[in-house]
Amino acid sequence: MQRLSTRNAGFAADFAALLDQARETTETVGPQVAAIIDDVRKRGDAAVCDYTSRFDRVSMTADRLAVTPAEIAAAKAAIAPDLMAALDLAATRIEAFHRAQMPADLVMTDAAGYRLGMRWSALDAVGLYVPGGKAAYPSSVLMNAIPAKVAGVDRIAICVPAPDGVLNPLVLAAADRAGVTEIYRVGGAQAVAALAYGTATIPAVDRIVGPGNAYVAEAKRQVFGRVGIDGIAGPSEVVVVADAANDPAHVAMDLLAQAEHDESAQSILITDDAAFADAVAAAVTEALKTLPRAAIAQASWDRHGAILLVADWSEAASLVNRLAPEHLQVMLAGPQHFFAQVRHAGAAFLGRFVPEAVGDYVAGPNHVLPTGRTARFASGLSVFDFIKRTTWVEGDAAALAAVGPAAVRLAETEGLTAHAQSIAMRLQD
Amino acid sequence: MQRLSTRNAGFAADFAALLDQARETTETVGPQVAAIIDDVRKRGDAAVCDYTSRFDRVSMTADRLAVTPAEIAAAKAAIAPDLMAALDLAATRIEAFHRAQMPADLVMTDAAGYRLGMRWSALDAVGLYVPGGKAAYPSSVLMNAIPAKVAGVDRIAICVPAPDGVLNPLVLAAADRAGVTEIYRVGGAQAVAALAYGTATIPAVDRIVGPGNAYVAEAKRQVFGRVGIDGIAGPSEVVVVADAANDPAHVAMDLLAQAEHDESAQSILITDDAAFADAVAAAVTEALKTLPRAAIAQASWDRHGAILLVADWSEAASLVNRLAPEHLQVMLAGPQHFFAQVRHAGAAFLGRFVPEAVGDYVAGPNHVLPTGRTARFASGLSVFDFIKRTTWVEGDAAALAAVGPAAVRLAETEGLTAHAQSIAMRLQD
Repeated sequence: MQRLSTRNAGFAADFAALLDQARETTETVGPQVAAIIDDVRKRGDAAVCDYTSRFDRVSMTADRLAVTPAEIAAAKAAIAPDLMAALDLAATRIEAFHRAQMPADLVMTDAAGYRLGMRWSALDAVGLYVPGGKAAYPSSVLMNAIPAKVAGVDRIAICVPAPDGVLNPLVLAAADRAGVTEIYRVGGAQAVAALAYGTATIPAVDRIVGPGNAYVAEAKRQVFGRVGIDGIAGPSEVVVVADAANDPAHVAMDLLAQAEHDESAQSILITDDAAFADAVAAAVTEALKTLPRAAIAQASWDRHGAILLVADWSEAASLVNRLAPEHLQVMLAGPQHFFAQVRHAGAAFLGRFVPEAVGDYVAGPNHVLPTGRTARFASGLSVFDFIKRTTWVEGDAAALAAVGPAAVRLAETEGLTAHAQSIAMRLQD
Repeated sequence: MQRLSTRNAGFAADFAALLDQARETTETVGPQVAAIIDDVRKRGDAAVCDYTSRFDRVSMTADRLAVTPAEIAAAKAAIAPDLMAALDLAATRIEAFHRAQMPADLVMTDAAGYRLGMRWSALDAVGLYVPGGKAAYPSSVLMNAIPAKVAGVDRIAICVPAPDGVLNPLVLAAADRAGVTEIYRVGGAQAVAALAYGTATIPAVDRIVGPGNAYVAEAKRQVFGRVGIDGIAGPSEVVVVADAANDPAHVAMDLLAQAEHDESAQSILITDDAAFADAVAAAVTEALKTLPRAAIAQASWDRHGAILLVADWSEAASLVNRLAPEHLQVMLAGPQHFFAQVRHAGAAFLGRFVPEAVGDYVAGPNHVLPTGRTARFASGLSVFDFIKRTTWVEGDAAALAAVGPAAVRLAETEGLTAHAQSIAMRLQD
């Protein structure tokens, strides 16, 4: 963990270095991924099964790619009722928030007599990539699938690898609760290729979302254009803005909740009080003694953690905007006042009783968020990922008479005679 | 041009072939583009100037990259007043439509006592790529820049190549009218690299939009993640749905307005009347005799044009949804009835007096639209390309008590102890 203070002469350079710090090594997997995609396009299910057998240490056949209703029912039956209730509470709250996101269509009539509009419609089919193994989180299944369901998508297909044939029952239960229509036990670039191009068993979708390893990310990049994709997910981060009125133990645990995800995760505290900073740092050290995932959290905190000491909160807001963090906790009195100065953040958690972990599970907003400073231009997953717009114009001869001559003039200037003619010949009628 | 009828036995296969027809050869320019980006990252302005000098046949220096206010003033002074008026009418109408697109923020309070919200905010800086040479269209400058301006973006930078040092004065005038803050005379992969990574003269932006050649498209693909990008633009297309009550000459000119863009463009007529189809085909042949860009339009029509004969309009709607065209003209009585059955199209033009060319210039909706069937998942350019969302949650101890235990249960199940602890320790207070 490094400590920086805006009062120090070297702050600007040190903060710039913190911003530029690469937290992941980029693997060059382009050629291998291109070969897998090409093979899946040519051989379909056979290629998908070959790669799955090899990478997941199973003996996969096409008839076993899809998870069956009986398997889902069995998975659900094995889950404790209180856990199912927790999953249902989360799903219900996520649904309510995402339903509120749905935008209205636009219809307007203008002075020239044109009726103009913008109509939203759902995608027909989407594919959700769910990482397997240690990162197979049922909460992420809810967060990916529910917005698609709320948006009105007909086909919601999940691809999730089952290393050694093992699937997390709660992942199946979450998919079922969220309204997923198909689940395939296949991962990696072969899953992305199947979703993009389709096989006999896995029909093609229109858009693929969800995080994955370097092979999945590269495969998404390569199929982009054929289908839509979401952003390339990087390691997670949190910025906690906190004054000395907070319990240092709370802040320390919030920082460690981020750090325990991944050694590449980043937790940053911004505070105006040096003694409070000391107390939080000490509390982190204490808490690390108790956590099962202490080794991961410790590595993250040592390598990427930071405490930034600021002179005032307006300085803090300016640092937040440069960091553009995935998660922002504002643990100040009147947090909305601070939040009003924030332009770039994926999701914000306002108040002393809103740890980011609440947002990971049950608050309602999505936990799939832009990482690595991409909140400068990107947004969290939402219903907007699963709908698209068609604009329209309706008008009669009088409307054309009002605006047509200007269009003819511009088309002629651009040398597009047929464009100009298509308007001019109607003006003469 | 090929003619297909849904009454023919081979229709399904022929239509599938039409859908799969590749209209562009894909150049493999990845390694060259990677080298250019790498060089611009290392050498900044010097690399940008070297590539510009070489590719645009000029002698570029860093101090001449930016177009000056004096150059813009001179360009505007040279433009005919009626042309400036046409440009202004277009800009005013595009502004009005895009202003109406701006979404409202979401704020809600739920039963647990949480206040939840979603706040839209503008990107800080965007880069617009404007193709040079024959495809330097002032209308496209308006269509790209005005949504960014309406969205509230502070820095709007244009990169436009100036082959042999020549810039289109109307492009400069359009940029000025639209509120562009910077114009750089640089194109190709070097422009994209400069916008993504920044140089001494060209500060980095957060998102890059706009069409370009294979090098520009590949460069955008490679910088994706560092900055946001829009879709990869392909050749343009129109589908005209028309009954026999239309003037065949009008329909023919609408088809040719698309075809004159590019030999790879595609124009498709869908009609229920074989005699009308004949009349349109004949009118296309006639009109081609009169057009300056006849060679291009003829090539496009010959290679990619199609007339699809359908039994009824519901069949037509189903074909439109499979084509997911960039542009859709509905030249039927009561066009909204047909449009209600359309799920996938970039932009629709409804009625006999709304040729697509009206939308290219003055209707108001954007003319930068998803091509090559990507309207299945993508949308036209809009204010949504220049804003992003931050979700937020605000709550107190009582709200946490209502939902916290479920989150603790889920976090423990996922093995994320610090997540669970960050909530549980606050529940005990």
